[in-house]
Amino acid sequence: MKKSFLFQQSYVSVKQMVEVGQITKIFAVAEAMRQRVEERQVYEPLKGYSVAILFYQPSTRTFSSFSAAARRLGAYVTAIHGMQSLSSVSKGESLEDTIRTICQTTAADVIVLRHPDDASSERAAAVAAVPVINAGSGVAEHPTQALLDLYAIYQHQKRLDRLQVAMVGDLLYGRTIKSLAALLGLYKKNSLSLVAPEALRAPTAWLGSLPKSMSVQEYDDWEGVLPEVDVLYMTRVQKEWFEQAGRLAEYEQMKHKYVLTRHLTEQMKPSAMVMHPLPRVGEILPEVDSDPRAYYFKQMRLGLYIRMALLEMIMKP
Amino acid sequence: MKKSFLFQQSYVSVKQMVEVGQITKIFAVAEAMRQRVEERQVYEPLKGYSVAILFYQPSTRTFSSFSAAARRLGAYVTAIHGMQSLSSVSKGESLEDTIRTICQTTAADVIVLRHPDDASSERAAAVAAVPVINAGSGVAEHPTQALLDLYAIYQHQKRLDRLQVAMVGDLLYGRTIKSLAALLGLYKKNSLSLVAPEALRAPTAWLGSLPKSMSVQEYDDWEGVLPEVDVLYMTRVQKEWFEQAGRLAEYEQMKHKYVLTRHLTEQMKPSAMVMHPLPRVGEILPEVDSDPRAYYFKQMRLGLYIRMALLEMIMKP
Amino acid sequence: MKKSFLFQQSYVSVKQMVEVGQITKIFAVAEAMRQRVEERQVYEPLKGYSVAILFYQPSTRTFSSFSAAARRLGAYVTAIHGMQSLSSVSKGESLEDTIRTICQTTAADVIVLRHPDDASSERAAAVAAVPVINAGSGVAEHPTQALLDLYAIYQHQKRLDRLQVAMVGDLLYGRTIKSLAALLGLYKKNSLSLVAPEALRAPTAWLGSLPKSMSVQEYDDWEGVLPEVDVLYMTRVQKEWFEQAGRLAEYEQMKHKYVLTRHLTEQMKPSAMVMHPLPRVGEILPEVDSDPRAYYFKQMRLGLYIRMALLEMIMKP
Repeated sequence: MKKSFLFQQSYVSVKQMVEVGQITKIFAVAEAMRQRVEERQVYEPLKGYSVAILFYQPSTRTFSSFSAAARRLGAYVTAIHGMQSLSSVSKGESLEDTIRTICQTTAADVIVLRHPDDASSERAAAVAAVPVINAGSGVAEHPTQALLDLYAIYQHQKRLDRLQVAMVGDLLYGRTIKSLAALLGLYKKNSLSLVAPEALRAPTAWLGSLPKSMSVQEYDDWEGVLPEVDVLYMTRVQKEWFEQAGRLAEYEQMKHKYVLTRHLTEQMKPSAMVMHPLPRVGEILPEVDSDPRAYYFKQMRLGLYIRMALLEMIMKP
Repeated sequence: MKKSFLFQQSYVSVKQMVEVGQITKIFAVAEAMRQRVEERQVYEPLKGYSVAILFYQPSTRTFSSFSAAARRLGAYVTAIHGMQSLSSVSKGESLEDTIRTICQTTAADVIVLRHPDDASSERAAAVAAVPVINAGSGVAEHPTQALLDLYAIYQHQKRLDRLQVAMVGDLLYGRTIKSLAALLGLYKKNSLSLVAPEALRAPTAWLGSLPKSMSVQEYDDWEGVLPEVDVLYMTRVQKEWFEQAGRLAEYEQMKHKYVLTRHLTEQMKPSAMVMHPLPRVGEILPEVDSDPRAYYFKQMRLGLYIRMALLEMIMKP
Repeated sequence: MKKSFLFQQSYVSVKQMVEVGQITKIFAVAEAMRQRVEERQVYEPLKGYSVAILFYQPSTRTFSSFSAAARRLGAYVTAIHGMQSLSSVSKGESLEDTIRTICQTTAADVIVLRHPDDASSERAAAVAAVPVINAGSGVAEHPTQALLDLYAIYQHQKRLDRLQVAMVGDLLYGRTIKSLAALLGLYKKNSLSLVAPEALRAPTAWLGSLPKSMSVQEYDDWEGVLPEVDVLYMTRVQKEWFEQAGRLAEYEQMKHKYVLTRHLTEQMKPSAMVMHPLPRVGEILPEVDSDPRAYYFKQMRLGLYIRMALLEMIMKP
């Protein structure tokens, strides 16, 4: 049997995806998972395997998605949210020691980690005896979200090249859009419209890291962009960053600079799709939910299939 | 196969129980569950199904009861308490968005919800793609508790009509007794004695909504009531309501107005039963626990069977 | 079939281990568990059984270890950490009522309890309809940790008698070392070196309770001890106790009185082993981790096997 390229590997960064073929394989496995879930097949290849899910930051969607994915595959699951307030951490234990410990106490075959430190997944992978999956690390990466976002685009548009993609909102702190843009760069002739207020523009260094093959334009205003796009990727302006910086007044000014209404949606192509990593806090009005272009809730479901695929590919040859 | 009347239906209110036959069916399924649990049979009809349990208010008994019920039936369970402090909620996500999201991230086949808003279950059911079970909504409803309470009465008294039932304590804020009284009203010739201090009397509007066929009496004092009753349903005066209203002094005065002692219990009929939704904080002295009329711990167990029955009836035709 | 001596028994104290044969049996079952886990065998003798895990104190390792152990054996698991902040407890429910309730709501076949009260496990066992396992009670006992520590010594040293064991650090509040010393006293010719700062010396009453057959020496300094020992059991000076007593300055002075470096480790016998219940906060430098004598992470894994053994022996004849 040919081993999956992910077999016994950590998945900590989208940078590990270096060719389109890798992604195609993950999508094929995810597609098989989708079918099994929809038909309510009992498919438990991870029976006998153990998955530890450790969240140091609050989360409902990624946490419940990973928990459900691992359980559906038959794994023994130890899922803990609120790690930051649990014993060993509050007693001053290092992340490295906690990871090594949980590997042992649960006989884990894989560790799923969300942590506020940008380098947390790399640190964990360096000491863990088993693969680590990054479920969100600081402002740096959210590589499973990027895969599910790409999978959503593929499901709706039936292609991943020659796409007009607009990313809107907080392009400075948002980790989702950075990871997704990197993946889009693997495909041909995609073009990116980055729409953000001055204070939340994408970092210059990051812009420089994007593949030259992808055309990139920056905008302050989105009216000219909407009618052109195949994919409109909305993001929330994250109050928490402004709070930390004592700049709440600025937040209030910017939070609703881009609000998608039904009226605006109607200016978009019929084949376009509206995405959002959620939660939203006003960027997309509920009146848009029933529009056929609204894809943000369907998008969530695809995360389950992608995570099932990753868990299986990492644990089974 | 005839479909259960609950199949693919939400269960958000006792008002959905409109005829005795519905309850009889639920009890029959619960009885089968009881037997399986007692014999430790492995019975997993929900294998391949997914249950999401979301609690926005603290709870041990209802939370652990639903979790155990779903797991015993073989379902994949995502059970989260402390939802109110998790990511999307603290970031300002609406209940509706959270429900839609969890449906997707876990591919849930049913959502079990506890939430402080009286209308929460209806709101959730309106947007969820799958049935919602109300595990307690504000001060309004606790419809699975009402079923288990009724089931407890049936187990002990072998009938649900011609019963003298006394409800004692907090009849103003208590949601349990309201739901139970509504169900008792479906049966013939039951009579209700409502015993409460002036400040915690049952709301007039609610009294008016009770079926005319049920005789209802209000009392401030319970001494005359105790020797007559078949069912004594005790409740806790809920400190939290008085705290919110800045009326703690009143609470202190009332909290132990009705304290069941062994001496008082002995004035009751031998066939009577003492119930309590628990937790108790002094309303029933531990010395009563060994009395054969004490039913409050047994009562808890029946909740497991009732919830197993509901989960199966809602998910399986 | 001969019943296990633990069958349907609570395990609340190491004092229940009164002869070497009992421990030998537990280790034999643990050894079988180790093999199954390492070979990823699906072995689920507790299918149909229910385990309730209730933690009233923060913990990552013991909590995740017990959860994983019960799940691997196929049990239905209800695992709740943060019990102290959940409903019934914050409403003033007694531990006894909570235990009786959870027995009923989950139809538990065993209760696993961690609680700050020294007598908590005995209190729980007195009212529970099913066996209780003590997962840590106040400063008094941690009897499953003691078994796993002893098992670790046996794995590495291949014997449990004629051992030179040094216990270092906080011998006043540490519950782990007390439980382990009691078990070591069941075997012949062990000798104990107790190394602690003046303020954290082992309590005199406890010293008096140790079997006379075991030679016991107290030290303030460990340099002469290190070259002699077969087992070096390090512990953390627990900041939390000093905080409660308003004596943080003392803590700062003592916390790093004994710091194991690579240099010091090299003075130990090649066959010696370094243990620590973890978390560590500086008592063992990370540079020691790669030394073959470092046993503290391997030690953790053995807890999984010991807890699997206990759960099976208690629930299955």
